[in-house]
Amino acid sequence: MVEIPESHPRKSSLIARQGIVEASSKGLLAGSAMIAHGRGEAFDYLLGERTTESARSAIREASYRLSSSEKPVISVNGNTVVLAGRRLLRLAAVLGCAIEVNLYYRTRERISGLLSELELLRDLVSMEDPPDGFVGDWSSSVKKIRLLGKNPDFEIAGLEGPRSKCTKEGIGCADTILVPLEDGDRCEALIASGKEVIVVDLNPLSRSSRNASITIVDEVSRASEVMLEELLSPVERSPEWDNSKILKDAIREMCSSMTRV
Amino acid sequence: MVEIPESHPRKSSLIARQGIVEASSKGLLAGSAMIAHGRGEAFDYLLGERTTESARSAIREASYRLSSSEKPVISVNGNTVVLAGRRLLRLAAVLGCAIEVNLYYRTRERISGLLSELELLRDLVSMEDPPDGFVGDWSSSVKKIRLLGKNPDFEIAGLEGPRSKCTKEGIGCADTILVPLEDGDRCEALIASGKEVIVVDLNPLSRSSRNASITIVDEVSRASEVMLEELLSPVERSPEWDNSKILKDAIREMCSSMTRV
Repeated sequence: MVEIPESHPRKSSLIARQGIVEASSKGLLAGSAMIAHGRGEAFDYLLGERTTESARSAIREASYRLSSSEKPVISVNGNTVVLAGRRLLRLAAVLGCAIEVNLYYRTRERISGLLSELELLRDLVSMEDPPDGFVGDWSSSVKKIRLLGKNPDFEIAGLEGPRSKCTKEGIGCADTILVPLEDGDRCEALIASGKEVIVVDLNPLSRSSRNASITIVDEVSRASEVMLEELLSPVERSPEWDNSKILKDAIREMCSSMTRV
Repeated sequence: MVEIPESHPRKSSLIARQGIVEASSKGLLAGSAMIAHGRGEAFDYLLGERTTESARSAIREASYRLSSSEKPVISVNGNTVVLAGRRLLRLAAVLGCAIEVNLYYRTRERISGLLSELELLRDLVSMEDPPDGFVGDWSSSVKKIRLLGKNPDFEIAGLEGPRSKCTKEGIGCADTILVPLEDGDRCEALIASGKEVIVVDLNPLSRSSRNASITIVDEVSRASEVMLEELLSPVERSPEWDNSKILKDAIREMCSSMTRV
């Protein structure tokens, strides 16, 4: 691993990249996962590698919907586990919800590998300090997080083959789903099945971004950290949610960062 | 390999992606090469996956400078060989110049692997029809292309370690260098050593793009095809070259494609 100096302006981006390269060499990621990460890097670069005001308002709305839903779930793929596994476990502990590993290119080996990774992280997170504002027994809240995906017994309607598989306990029965870095087909199918779908996607033009109930145009690890803050502080909700405005804001941010050069 | 339907609007982008994934699994690419490819994909997506008018004018100027230089050379890395090896060999045959494999993360294995790949492609290209407008013996022009990089005996001034190494016969003595997908440090060092540096880079904001003598903001395979046409047809040259205008044009194209959505 290459040492990245503390002062490097793009340190967190470079550390994330190393994590993805290492996970790929361990066989945890699909063949084109690194390419997807690179696409995200380009959009994050245009965004200035920061959580914009409009992303924060999307995170706030998402926090409200997740905490007021009956059956929330967090759906993760390989890149999400690598980039934000630890932070999403902290979110799941606060929300009291399950995390389901759900892969577009599903193989038994990668599902098992990613679940083992999450189990390891769950142990680590259970020993961490609780986040500011958390009330209750942190360690036991973390240990109780169910990690699903090994034995799919349900299918997402409108999809075919391995990519349709999920668990009934998790995605199958959920009313609200936080699904970072999701494929466009699956996002559409989840919406069509009547769920609230919250995506985290750095590309404001992707099909997932354009179809989601709420789109958080932000890097998944940064967004998860901000969401934890929002969940643990009084949540103000905008009276009506206009997701297309969020996408336009993101596009405007990216263009203005390009033309500043 | 997944079958991509002929009618898919992004067919060539998806085929290029498969090529990169396969080359990576064969060990021909550095660990983060797929991430770099993904970044390129994002910018090409914003560009509309086409050669813009301003990219074409950069290609025209580059063709003029390459064909009128004393010692041109084409420097390639792993992604360039995979994406455009065949087309760059056709260019090298027309220019009568060498191709040098030059890697930022240099290993003996990858240099050898990429040179073997190029040797194979050179045999194939020598059996192809000559491009329209080519005068001479195509097969022998192709077979004569020197493929360099195995035994570096020169250093690019201002760089340290393996990334400084090159051959005297190729990059060392060249006055004009076509170097697609180049790293920012190396691009600066090549410019500082007094060479004309022509880069092909989809990110108009990168250091390579901003420092090059000529920046072709285009996908390397498309750009190589257009350059072949330009080399073989009468070249009109703009009286003065303003590279910063080309970068501004590319940025404007990308922004307008984003805001059209």
